Amino acid sequence: MNVFIIGTGLIGGSFALDLKQVMPKVKIFGIDAKEEHLQQALETGIIDAEANFSDLCNAELVYLAIPVDAAIKLLPEILELVPENCVVIDTGSTKEKICQLVADHPKRRNFLAAHPIAGTEFSGPSAAINGLFSKKTNIICEVEKTAFKLQEKALEIFHSVGMRIRYMDPASHDRHIAYVSHLSHISSFMLGKTVLEKEKNERDIFDLAGSGFASTVRLAKSSPAMWTPIFAQNKDNVLETLDEYISNLSHFRELLSKDNFEEVFSEMDKTNHIKSVLNGITENEPLKKLENGK
Amino acid sequence: MNVFIIGTGLIGGSFALDLKQVMPKVKIFGIDAKEEHLQQALETGIIDAEANFSDLCNAELVYLAIPVDAAIKLLPEILELVPENCVVIDTGSTKEKICQLVADHPKRRNFLAAHPIAGTEFSGPSAAINGLFSKKTNIICEVEKTAFKLQEKALEIFHSVGMRIRYMDPASHDRHIAYVSHLSHISSFMLGKTVLEKEKNERDIFDLAGSGFASTVRLAKSSPAMWTPIFAQNKDNVLETLDEYISNLSHFRELLSKDNFEEVFSEMDKTNHIKSVLNGITENEPLKKLENGK
Repeated sequence: MNVFIIGTGLIGGSFALDLKQVMPKVKIFGIDAKEEHLQQALETGIIDAEANFSDLCNAELVYLAIPVDAAIKLLPEILELVPENCVVIDTGSTKEKICQLVADHPKRRNFLAAHPIAGTEFSGPSAAINGLFSKKTNIICEVEKTAFKLQEKALEIFHSVGMRIRYMDPASHDRHIAYVSHLSHISSFMLGKTVLEKEKNERDIFDLAGSGFASTVRLAKSSPAMWTPIFAQNKDNVLETLDEYISNLSHFRELLSKDNFEEVFSEMDKTNHIKSVLNGITENEPLKKLENGK
Repeated sequence: MNVFIIGTGLIGGSFALDLKQVMPKVKIFGIDAKEEHLQQALETGIIDAEANFSDLCNAELVYLAIPVDAAIKLLPEILELVPENCVVIDTGSTKEKICQLVADHPKRRNFLAAHPIAGTEFSGPSAAINGLFSKKTNIICEVEKTAFKLQEKALEIFHSVGMRIRYMDPASHDRHIAYVSHLSHISSFMLGKTVLEKEKNERDIFDLAGSGFASTVRLAKSSPAMWTPIFAQNKDNVLETLDEYISNLSHFRELLSKDNFEEVFSEMDKTNHIKSVLNGITENEPLKKLENGK
């Protein structure tokens, strides 16, 4: 099978590595706006050959793993270029805009809107790792709008790399993911900003910060080029989550300033319950468990 | 050496486990307000025997690892009970109040104010782990107020369990730690609250949340009984950090609402720089590195 990875970074590169494990005969072509990424991807064996858009006529599967603003610009053209038997899978963290964009595209049935809940705070081909998708959730939107044979082809591959599938409409996806992903990134970036602004002497941060701070601020290492268009495309939902977050922080601040420690305790006690929700996630993250030293 | 661990939880228990490794002849006595904790600590070999305050006359080292409100209540009495050659080390996350409290205590020179930057989000004797303190920073405040012989005794032990020492005055400690620890906990608790409130159907959180969310919200699993008195004792500093954090979040919200994506990008780009600060921390956390799959 001829697979074209457009965007050979963390997600595209990791998908290529997994495909090679489960489909030894796969031939992987790379397309990337950055020539140095293509070179890295070639050298590390992530892709077998460089390619460009004119080669897409030979594609049987296209995996689009680029920032969501670029995805929206390129998807209509990609759909026009691929043959009838080719499925084009996107991986962006926003689904409403991209689904709206191609709703009336003559090749809509060649498109599968997906969002793998997988990644790290790193980016580029050097961040690609084997097994990134194992036991991770892959959200698929508007599955009924993809040709049945192409759904089948994509699902077989998703299953073979170990993903769990969940179907959602694009609006629900964007609303939910604003809470469990987009807001986390902003909270982490602004926490990093707050501490960096205060602690001009970085040596102090280094010495006093423990693994708790490192964990909370980890997402502030993420790529602004990837995240700015996500926030732009999901602006309304993200603003709503931010308003609620700021309101909760302000309420906590008020309780503290008024010495209402009973309520301060209660606020934390009620949220402790997140343990049971998170257990499900960490169970699927064997390396996270190690982190706790258990 | 007779060591008394007051509070046989994560910190006290882990310290006992490390002491047994580096001082095979140590005899460890446990004091805990919770009888079931003492039983667990005995059964798992964390302590050799239960004890109570009247036994403190035989102590050569007391390790006080209880919530900071309880520490403040008990420290003056503990100091009165211990013999001249005994060093009493506290481990609380606030240092100003406890140092003020015993400033004029006749046995001030038996006290060493310390704060090991080590821990996990878990608590109780079952959370105690070997090697928790290895390569971690131990902040010591007002070292000059501790008897020299007792400083020496404590430092030898800190070094033997692998800790790095950093000296600070209590006010600086509380101000800095508000930024790199206390604020992280509030940001994480309120993030957890925001998501839990919205997502009444928890199955949705579980399915859509990835390791990024788990990381950012990890500290929301922490013990409210431990954290409420910390926020109370460090109220002024914590309020200041919260005000700055809320202000940064509100500013980001405004940029987003006005479609100023150039500045949204810039806000994140400037904070990305936290990578270099955090590298120092993660280097000392081999298990954190694994988490990134590298």
